[in-house]
Amino acid sequence: MPTRYRIALDAMGGDHGPAAVVPAALKVLRRHQDRVQLILVGDEDTLRRALEGHGGREGELLRIHHAAQAVDMDELPSQALRFKKDSSMRVSINLVKEGEADACVSAGNTGALMATARYVLKTLPGIDRPAICTQIPCIGGSFRMLDLGANVDCSAEHLFQFAVMGSVLTEASEDNPVPRIGLLNLGVEEIKGNDQVKQAAQLLQGSALNYGGYVEADRMYQGVADVVVCDGFTGNVALKASEGVASVISRYLREEFTRNALTRIAGLVALPVLRALRRRLDPRRYNGASLLGLRGVVVKSHGGADYVAFEHAIEVGVLEAEKNVPRLIDERIGEMFAQEREQP
Amino acid sequence: MPTRYRIALDAMGGDHGPAAVVPAALKVLRRHQDRVQLILVGDEDTLRRALEGHGGREGELLRIHHAAQAVDMDELPSQALRFKKDSSMRVSINLVKEGEADACVSAGNTGALMATARYVLKTLPGIDRPAICTQIPCIGGSFRMLDLGANVDCSAEHLFQFAVMGSVLTEASEDNPVPRIGLLNLGVEEIKGNDQVKQAAQLLQGSALNYGGYVEADRMYQGVADVVVCDGFTGNVALKASEGVASVISRYLREEFTRNALTRIAGLVALPVLRALRRRLDPRRYNGASLLGLRGVVVKSHGGADYVAFEHAIEVGVLEAEKNVPRLIDERIGEMFAQEREQP
Repeated sequence: MPTRYRIALDAMGGDHGPAAVVPAALKVLRRHQDRVQLILVGDEDTLRRALEGHGGREGELLRIHHAAQAVDMDELPSQALRFKKDSSMRVSINLVKEGEADACVSAGNTGALMATARYVLKTLPGIDRPAICTQIPCIGGSFRMLDLGANVDCSAEHLFQFAVMGSVLTEASEDNPVPRIGLLNLGVEEIKGNDQVKQAAQLLQGSALNYGGYVEADRMYQGVADVVVCDGFTGNVALKASEGVASVISRYLREEFTRNALTRIAGLVALPVLRALRRRLDPRRYNGASLLGLRGVVVKSHGGADYVAFEHAIEVGVLEAEKNVPRLIDERIGEMFAQEREQP
Repeated sequence: MPTRYRIALDAMGGDHGPAAVVPAALKVLRRHQDRVQLILVGDEDTLRRALEGHGGREGELLRIHHAAQAVDMDELPSQALRFKKDSSMRVSINLVKEGEADACVSAGNTGALMATARYVLKTLPGIDRPAICTQIPCIGGSFRMLDLGANVDCSAEHLFQFAVMGSVLTEASEDNPVPRIGLLNLGVEEIKGNDQVKQAAQLLQGSALNYGGYVEADRMYQGVADVVVCDGFTGNVALKASEGVASVISRYLREEFTRNALTRIAGLVALPVLRALRRRLDPRRYNGASLLGLRGVVVKSHGGADYVAFEHAIEVGVLEAEKNVPRLIDERIGEMFAQEREQP
């Protein structure tokens, strides 16, 4: 009998809650019938109704696990931690902690998810801080970027740990044994950047990682690195600026094609091309950010994710459960420390 | 007789040197015959030949000022400062210092330009560090962002000074008496961000500026602020990430329209629309970043600027010379300090 990966889904999180999570779960289950078992965590009655509404039903492969509370999207992490001990988010993470699930996926608020996951699961030995990592499309494929907002201030050591975690995740996910690591910086010259970045570069140069030097934010979209490392403030800004520009361009495109009767006709003729473009740029295909550095797999879905996007986030969880990414990170950190001790 | 603004142009800077600067100068001169006087700074023979080649000639309104050296695009700022005292860049800045020019414009290397301008012109009283500020298109118009890379580490006071300078520049350039100031941050909640940003928010709240709170990087493209303030590391990354995404999308667009015979026909039909889109997104229209906080107007053109883009950078210089932005900043800083002293 093949191994089944048990994924706990915070079914009440995100802007859409069960309306996105339940149909996404049913689709994933159909695709991976022999490989996954899904646990919908949240209000039992609500979830049972949602399941029926989508033509699904409870069974061995799709269980409902009751949780009486839900974390609000704008709730303070400290409040969620203190007052929402029976939230769908917290219970999902508890299932991972207790070994009842191999991963959990939530579209709930990022701050609360990170705080709760860190509190419940703890960080791996040798990892000071967990980081948020996501896959981003670029020319010729994609790259992974971290941290995306968990840590606003980072030391060189933190950046180095992010690089290790990003490398391990990419190795496991992409069948790429030696991902190129880039450090996000203002320029490629040695003299540029702040002290943390310069010191992180030295740590990376002296490590076994495939470090390729500094990367500028425009160049990362040319596919010059497989893993781009930065502090959470910069990473969050870079990602959101990118999303902002993409949305402006798609709005302009729509405006230009609907300007008058002639441009509307041009738009009709160009429709298949524009659809192909939209598919290529569809952010839902890259939904699902990994909270790396914890003693368990936790995946954050975009809060506004629809069921297609949430499905992708579940897939990220399945993959990381299958590869056991936390164990791989733990082993790699152990090896690196051992090497360091051996060096004169 | 109306005032003539004298603009020194570093004619040897940038990737294209005189090939971009000379035709740009001729076009600006034609447009502003009664308002500007341009000084081409660089190798005399080269510039004379370039002028002839473009059907222009020396005269009272278009002078050539010889400079024997040129700063390389990858030259270290310290090297340029020390060994290139007769460079077209340095001589252009000297002309501003000596009152022979009201502004200078250079497409030369940013680090060298900032270091030289700071060394020669000095910062205004009350300004600790100059900042780089540029106009960026967004939904409904444009906004200005600073710092874009001059200062990798910034204190709350630095960010506050950037806000003052950005506000003054926007007031002068946009006929907007109370520009909305936004602080770039991870989220709009009070608890988010690093210490510098949080403290800067307090300084801004207590000031006479029209401070509108935190701005996320995606929201700035929705036009929620007229001035977006951040440290130079973050600003540089945000701007470059934006450029990177725009270039990926335009590449995808081209690829999709040239995929096969059918899509090529669609592309032909859509050509006028695509051209309109390209015009709207044309970064050349926003070329010309201001080095704010100096005792003189210095404008940085993109290094790869062609003559159309360089023309826009000259226009930025003309406008800032006309408004005398350094004096306006000086006065505003003076007023703010005076108010602070008056407060109990």
